[in-house]
Amino acid sequence: MKILFAGAGALGSRFGYMLFKNNEDVTFVDTWEEHVENIKNKGLKVIIDEVDLGNYYIPIYKPEQISGKYDVIFVATKSMQLRPMLDSVKHLFHEDTKIVCILNGLGHVETLKDYVKEENILIGVTVWTSGLGGPGILKAHGTGKIELKQVKEINLDRTLSLVERFNEAGLNIKYSADTYQSIWHKAGLNCVLNSFCTLIDCNINQYGSYDKNLQLTRAVLNEVTAVGRAEGVDVKQEVIENNIKNIFPLDIAGAHYPSLYQDMKNGWLTEIDFLNGAISRLGKIHNIPTPVCDVITLMIHSKEFINNNK
Amino acid sequence: MKILFAGAGALGSRFGYMLFKNNEDVTFVDTWEEHVENIKNKGLKVIIDEVDLGNYYIPIYKPEQISGKYDVIFVATKSMQLRPMLDSVKHLFHEDTKIVCILNGLGHVETLKDYVKEENILIGVTVWTSGLGGPGILKAHGTGKIELKQVKEINLDRTLSLVERFNEAGLNIKYSADTYQSIWHKAGLNCVLNSFCTLIDCNINQYGSYDKNLQLTRAVLNEVTAVGRAEGVDVKQEVIENNIKNIFPLDIAGAHYPSLYQDMKNGWLTEIDFLNGAISRLGKIHNIPTPVCDVITLMIHSKEFINNNK
Repeated sequence: MKILFAGAGALGSRFGYMLFKNNEDVTFVDTWEEHVENIKNKGLKVIIDEVDLGNYYIPIYKPEQISGKYDVIFVATKSMQLRPMLDSVKHLFHEDTKIVCILNGLGHVETLKDYVKEENILIGVTVWTSGLGGPGILKAHGTGKIELKQVKEINLDRTLSLVERFNEAGLNIKYSADTYQSIWHKAGLNCVLNSFCTLIDCNINQYGSYDKNLQLTRAVLNEVTAVGRAEGVDVKQEVIENNIKNIFPLDIAGAHYPSLYQDMKNGWLTEIDFLNGAISRLGKIHNIPTPVCDVITLMIHSKEFINNNK
Repeated sequence: MKILFAGAGALGSRFGYMLFKNNEDVTFVDTWEEHVENIKNKGLKVIIDEVDLGNYYIPIYKPEQISGKYDVIFVATKSMQLRPMLDSVKHLFHEDTKIVCILNGLGHVETLKDYVKEENILIGVTVWTSGLGGPGILKAHGTGKIELKQVKEINLDRTLSLVERFNEAGLNIKYSADTYQSIWHKAGLNCVLNSFCTLIDCNINQYGSYDKNLQLTRAVLNEVTAVGRAEGVDVKQEVIENNIKNIFPLDIAGAHYPSLYQDMKNGWLTEIDFLNGAISRLGKIHNIPTPVCDVITLMIHSKEFINNNK
């Protein structure tokens, strides 16, 4: 079984390494020149929990250099690069190629549907984390888990055996009918913390220290919940509110500046269109007003523009 | 006629100087120790349009040191200090003391009503600007004008003769029934530019350079207009939108960071409760939803709190 990682960044190379080490036939595709060259020439250097686990010669290509057909494609890009990446690897799909997508944010199924049948889309959410310590260097900590669901649940057998096989490599995937709920719960948390920390200019603990943080949280979550339910997902707002509150302490995630904050500071475009921006977009479809997510999305985009982020 | 300036900051000392120089009986009250001492000992140093016009020994006191009765009180504080200032000078009012209030923002009439009869409240709006070059030093540029209205229009004679007398000193006051409209038009502009420039972290020109700035502007102004009309004021949204657009160029006011932005950066509390916060408060009274002003007010307050502004 040929497995392609479309995007070999932090999470992609972590999962790719785990499967490769478990003797799966793994190939990477990436667009970052230096990263590709380093992995090609010296192998992927793997450092987990501060331990150097050696270098792994996982085949890696730039999209225009790769051919053949693959059975499973893990997409592991930034949300904005999902469509361009799929365009650049779609010649590697066969009739029954499965795509695994565990990107943060909302709206990815709509994109994926343009490339494969719904029964071949495996959509999920993860709490695994990872990082890069420079081109060719994976630097990760701890463990995690994945929740996964086949969008159209017919002929589930192959997916379930895939899950089993990936779990032999330690990916810790749970096939779950509640995956959409988990995706929305994670997206809801991000719609609050990523946006507000960026606009207020603070970390998660500081956000939590403001005595009216729950009012801010609810201003966004009331819209997330209403739109999610219109989408047919049983979004439990009190669960998201608790998830947010539970990470305020400094020894949990309080000292953390959310990824969108970091992208903004680093001069990159953000994933706002797949968070609050997705709520605005879906709200329009369902005729649900989303004034707060609308204005947050516009403010984040104006900040990107004024900072000349790319 | 005894005239008191309750607050002798930038604008207060400018108008006070103009009246004093025109032989009016002017007294200052201020809480800034060094400012009071300098004016007492060396006079108010007046520099207008870069020309040093000399030092003026205008009587100045701290609130607890002053006695007597005054016929006209100009209030010239920050919005948040209006009520504490009125509390500290209310022993200087007689039965028919007039209060002139040309502070930025909304909601001041409600405060003033707790101290004098409505026919003694003169509410207005100004485009005069001014600054301080340190304690005891007035540093101002250009000229301006004032629009003024007596809240309850009975026995207007004295007010109209006051206006005439103040205009002899160059204050350039127009008594106008449309003053409320002008106040709301100015507040509407500030509800947009002061808040967004602070949250996006940009100057007025940069705000205007974002191609969707009109969407942001309207997200706020739709609420301002609806609430203003419920208050009985003929708010013309297209006028505010044009006023905003017209100051985008760098050679108009584009290079300017709005006062709220400056207060935030300087570690001070902001006037948000008298701008977007006032829209939220009045919206509740009229049962008009103001989700955008609500969330902006909360974000600005959280930023003040996290920055430890005072």
